[in-house]
Amino acid sequence: MKHDLPDKVTLIEVGPRDGFQFEKKIIPTELKAEIISRLVDVGLKHIQVASFVNPARLPQMADAEDVVGRLPVSPGTIFSGLALNTKGVLRAHRAGLKHLEISISASDTHSRKNAGLSFDQAVIQMKEMIRLAREKSMGVRAGIQCAFGCVYEGAVSRERILQLVRYYSSKGVDAIALSDTTGMANPLSVKQMLQTLIPECRGIPVVLHLHDTRGLGLANVMAALECGVTQFDTAMAGMGGCPFVRGAAGNIATEDTVNLMNLLGIITGIDIVGVSKCSERLEKFLAKKFPGKMHRLVLQTG
Amino acid sequence: MKHDLPDKVTLIEVGPRDGFQFEKKIIPTELKAEIISRLVDVGLKHIQVASFVNPARLPQMADAEDVVGRLPVSPGTIFSGLALNTKGVLRAHRAGLKHLEISISASDTHSRKNAGLSFDQAVIQMKEMIRLAREKSMGVRAGIQCAFGCVYEGAVSRERILQLVRYYSSKGVDAIALSDTTGMANPLSVKQMLQTLIPECRGIPVVLHLHDTRGLGLANVMAALECGVTQFDTAMAGMGGCPFVRGAAGNIATEDTVNLMNLLGIITGIDIVGVSKCSERLEKFLAKKFPGKMHRLVLQTG
Repeated sequence: MKHDLPDKVTLIEVGPRDGFQFEKKIIPTELKAEIISRLVDVGLKHIQVASFVNPARLPQMADAEDVVGRLPVSPGTIFSGLALNTKGVLRAHRAGLKHLEISISASDTHSRKNAGLSFDQAVIQMKEMIRLAREKSMGVRAGIQCAFGCVYEGAVSRERILQLVRYYSSKGVDAIALSDTTGMANPLSVKQMLQTLIPECRGIPVVLHLHDTRGLGLANVMAALECGVTQFDTAMAGMGGCPFVRGAAGNIATEDTVNLMNLLGIITGIDIVGVSKCSERLEKFLAKKFPGKMHRLVLQTG
Repeated sequence: MKHDLPDKVTLIEVGPRDGFQFEKKIIPTELKAEIISRLVDVGLKHIQVASFVNPARLPQMADAEDVVGRLPVSPGTIFSGLALNTKGVLRAHRAGLKHLEISISASDTHSRKNAGLSFDQAVIQMKEMIRLAREKSMGVRAGIQCAFGCVYEGAVSRERILQLVRYYSSKGVDAIALSDTTGMANPLSVKQMLQTLIPECRGIPVVLHLHDTRGLGLANVMAALECGVTQFDTAMAGMGGCPFVRGAAGNIATEDTVNLMNLLGIITGIDIVGVSKCSERLEKFLAKKFPGKMHRLVLQTG
């Protein structure tokens, strides 16, 4: 059966950033570097490698510069870092990164709790970060957190999201990321949102950042594929989480998403066994089981 | 946004059958009866309550008759039992059940390993079971295991599945169940299968029995909803599994499916908190965590 899904998609590995930052046990810089190198070897073409945030608040990311210093030489791979303020932008730049991710919450309450800023304050800071990143010739991916709802506020203002998308597209950012930060999206809300937003993006690619908190991660991926989305954030083994939702699951798992794409005949260029071995290595080091499913099936463990 | 999904669906709770049978620790008959009563109270309209199989092979189901003897009086609820041979049909009938589930594997290898019969032998037995159930005035739901693939054989013959569906519909069974026994379905294969089979069902409802082995359970539910399917087997907390797939997850979770339907505005009549409490009770008794997600979120535990 012919279908209207994309021929190929890009999975952006966020495990080393969004996954690692939820782990209390400090992962040695060496192991972080080893995992990132392996991810490059198994076909990941875009990897978020670190957050440039206050080390006192997030000790797991205190070695962000060291991690960047140990990145493998791989001209075909995009290595990006997350920054929450202009200080972070400058740190990422000085560390040598060429790609930056910035992000702002569409929910005022979430923004205050997560970033200590009201929405309006966060917008001012976001504009300054984009300006600064441009001045430093860095590529910018601009994101919207809680795009599909907020555990505090419930529905978020569609108008506010549209306003952000229009600003991002007016600045010609590299990509616009819609984050389902607390796993509240469903296949219908994903389609509704994308049908509204994609025409406003002026051809700038949309990335979906989905969490599997309620078991709908891959159902939402399907909905997005049907709307033409070709970029998804995923994390090895489904690492990650949300500090504001108890019992919450992490990002959609890289291996599980690769498996879905393989079944659909959509090219990712990623070796599922190779990624699964990275997941297994991390599960062993951290002595825990992550929620992703395919790594254990692929390696026939657990 | 208007959509073409059904207005309401029926979730068939298979936890007391497909879930319990994978647990080594014997669940006391009293607790089984208590859980089934609670499930009725919280809105389940169809519950598979037991398997009438060899107690020596499946000790967890040795009390099938006792469980049926303790069912609550609930004229609006369908209580059904699974049988694998004519002896099981007679046991279910004598126990007082009015509804029977029979099932046959589309995979010869799976049939031999699971039922000890070749496909052709299993067909003969299936026909005899349907005849006997009819003689006893029992409603029959007829199923096809491995309808979306087999871990041993890979793809299964579409022609063989069509042949079974045509036989079932010629017999006017109450429903035809397609089982993704080892979690191999994907949204495209679900749509392809349903578009082929539904016209052959002559108006007999199709039930999907999905496992979340590869994280695609609810994505497959979406695909089936889009094809007009309105009946799904689900199990509290995502209990169950597959003895032939290591690391395999269980059935799609009742609570997770109810949550999806609530988000889509599709009526189930099921109280998600009530089901979650049943899941919590079982997790406590069995001292384990099942893979479903919503029960912990709803009850804010774990």
